[in-house]
Amino acid sequence: MPDEILNDISHRRYNPLTGSWLLVSPHRTKRPWQGQQEAALENTLPEYDEKCYLCPGNKRAQGDQNPRYENTFVFVNDYSAVKEQQQDYQPEVKSDDIASLLLRAEAATGRCYVLTFSAKHNATLADMTAQEIVPVIETWTRIYASHLAPSSPLAGAAADVLKALPAASADDSVTPPAHQLRYMQIFENKGAAMGCSNPHPHCQIWTTSSLPEEPGKELAQLARYRREHAGRHMLADYVRLEMEKGERVVWQNDAFLVVCPWWAVWPFEVLVIAKRHVRALVDLTAAERLQFAEAVQEVARRYDNLFQTSFPYSSGIHQAPLECRDEDEAESSWFHMHFYPPLLRSATVRKFLVGYELMAEPQRDITPEQATLRLRDCGGKLYRKSM
Amino acid sequence: MPDEILNDISHRRYNPLTGSWLLVSPHRTKRPWQGQQEAALENTLPEYDEKCYLCPGNKRAQGDQNPRYENTFVFVNDYSAVKEQQQDYQPEVKSDDIASLLLRAEAATGRCYVLTFSAKHNATLADMTAQEIVPVIETWTRIYASHLAPSSPLAGAAADVLKALPAASADDSVTPPAHQLRYMQIFENKGAAMGCSNPHPHCQIWTTSSLPEEPGKELAQLARYRREHAGRHMLADYVRLEMEKGERVVWQNDAFLVVCPWWAVWPFEVLVIAKRHVRALVDLTAAERLQFAEAVQEVARRYDNLFQTSFPYSSGIHQAPLECRDEDEAESSWFHMHFYPPLLRSATVRKFLVGYELMAEPQRDITPEQATLRLRDCGGKLYRKSM
Ligand SMILES: O=P(O)(O)O[C@H]1O[C@H](CO)[C@@H](O)[C@H](O)[C@H]1O
Ligand SMILES: O=P(O)(O)O[C@H]1O[C@H](CO)[C@@H](O)[C@H](O)[C@H]1O
Repeated sequence: MPDEILNDISHRRYNPLTGSWLLVSPHRTKRPWQGQQEAALENTLPEYDEKCYLCPGNKRAQGDQNPRYENTFVFVNDYSAVKEQQQDYQPEVKSDDIASLLLRAEAATGRCYVLTFSAKHNATLADMTAQEIVPVIETWTRIYASHLAPSSPLAGAAADVLKALPAASADDSVTPPAHQLRYMQIFENKGAAMGCSNPHPHCQIWTTSSLPEEPGKELAQLARYRREHAGRHMLADYVRLEMEKGERVVWQNDAFLVVCPWWAVWPFEVLVIAKRHVRALVDLTAAERLQFAEAVQEVARRYDNLFQTSFPYSSGIHQAPLECRDEDEAESSWFHMHFYPPLLRSATVRKFLVGYELMAEPQRDITPEQATLRLRDCGGKLYRKSM
Repeated sequence: MPDEILNDISHRRYNPLTGSWLLVSPHRTKRPWQGQQEAALENTLPEYDEKCYLCPGNKRAQGDQNPRYENTFVFVNDYSAVKEQQQDYQPEVKSDDIASLLLRAEAATGRCYVLTFSAKHNATLADMTAQEIVPVIETWTRIYASHLAPSSPLAGAAADVLKALPAASADDSVTPPAHQLRYMQIFENKGAAMGCSNPHPHCQIWTTSSLPEEPGKELAQLARYRREHAGRHMLADYVRLEMEKGERVVWQNDAFLVVCPWWAVWPFEVLVIAKRHVRALVDLTAAERLQFAEAVQEVARRYDNLFQTSFPYSSGIHQAPLECRDEDEAESSWFHMHFYPPLLRSATVRKFLVGYELMAEPQRDITPEQATLRLRDCGGKLYRKSM
């Protein structure tokens, strides 16, 4: 590899998914650390917590009672960031009026769900088996399919998958929204260090009337790459390249590749990429859903094994919008999942993306290739007894 | 004001400085918080700490000894993220070769400084008077001036200011770099919550061979606004508009306006903007340097008064590049300083920019107008005895 030198020098790397650069300073981890230490999380939680608003049978903040669910349970967030109904807002925009230029706003509506992964208060994805994660992926798929625009190029796939999936549990409060929404962001904040306010394993699903910034940037980059490279998909090329090179591959099965991407910002950031052209959850076959569950399980378990702690992270799925602007937008979409974990040196020392990162440019300390080697070594059983 | 409605509904706002949107959910602070609590910082630090590598007279990690300085002291970071000397790296780029497209890197060189604000280990900008902050601004100015490209349109201003400034203290290790650098990012991480590893008041100055992402985006937006609006400056228009509207103005003097910008992401984010066209530190007059010190002092003190704590934040100055691509880049630059503080509800409850924010789009809970009202009420004396 001609680029060994990148282990020793400061350099910038380019993220083709977002079109932006980051700074890599491999030698920087040598500095002493006198700053904040995170509390190392020992899992001493009970399997059921009567004060948890996500445990089966418990009452939630605004009085609703959870059913005695067995694996997943989904409900509309009691404190949604966006709502379906609100006062109408249509600001008057006058072209070249300074206020219209510099004080721009638009209404944002949508629906936010909370989805539990397990009835057990103390389980995490690392504790669960791939088979136990499959129902989570099925629920994601069902929710995505039932929010998809009828006119979407994915509508056929959605109808098929809805027929094939096991019936939704009676408690799912998933009904199609009153107005068609544009994008669905599935994400998990795990651990107090990542702003998670309840350890009961769960993710959130925010569905909005606009295409948010990050998937918007990615979609524009993916579409552009296809235009500029004879219809080839960026992530198809990238998967092929990483499989050839090998040095950033953490794990793979037939359907998914797990890499520390070339452009990773977070110390142990990984990207789970579909190997074939999957536009969204509804394109996955039953076999692929299981393989996706395996990939997610591998990542979560390796993370926990790395520093022998319940590893915090934020994760999120990027896929085709619910309502595509055109055929090209659907076709350019390529299913993948990001994991952004903050820990850097140990269970208690994290990477802060602060001053320079916020004001100038993201900066990382170890290279993605070094992170890959560490994560490759963390396979095998979970370091602690699974919950 | 026709837009009172924005206090009650979810909406998106546009940031014309970066060209991106954020989500505002004013009703969201009502949700209960069971997540991480920050330690409230009581200032029980001594005025001198023999273990601090920034205190006057102490030894640093790699053996250098600090002088017995009186106010500011600057040195090259012992663990710099970029260095002036490193192995040469010039990757071979083949057009339409997939690796060249998707594994792009470039060398990054530069110089990183650490600059202390005070000899007192336990002081902060909030504890210092504007007069005591002036030497900090003078040192910033001297460092910027001595790194400026000789060909820069700002070179004349730099030469003048270097003559006018009080002589540098003998201990300043500021010599012009061997190779011309492109950009200088001055920033402060204050408080453990913002990754600060040493409470001794200090900032960092990272000077790099490339223009980093954030100032790059801003410069492109500022230049574009001028092109599209008959040569008018975006921040001139914005200052005028905010002074007219008033509802986001926290404080001002003749030379600087302090606002919670329309597009603020962090709960109590503020922007300090020069009222007249100042391209960079070297354009400031002595009177304006004092007024800038006053503005910075006002922000720091109001922050501390808000939750009666030593308020964490990252701050950073954006100004003209050291080496401008052309006359237009220098002319489009408009001196300003960002403050990004994480606290939301109290000294111990912060806002996390995590899952949705990282995967989709920044999201804030209170409106900038609400934040402004709170900060306006925090003037007057520092709540604690100044150090
Ligand atoms: O340079 P320091 O204070 O050691 O480090 C701090 O600031 C840097 C620049 O924002 C960050 O990269 C580090 O993560 C942070 O801990
Ligand atoms: O929705 P939660 O879990 O209350 O809140 C968490 O996730 C949200 C979405 O990433 C963030 O906006 C909050 O700052 C964070 O604490």
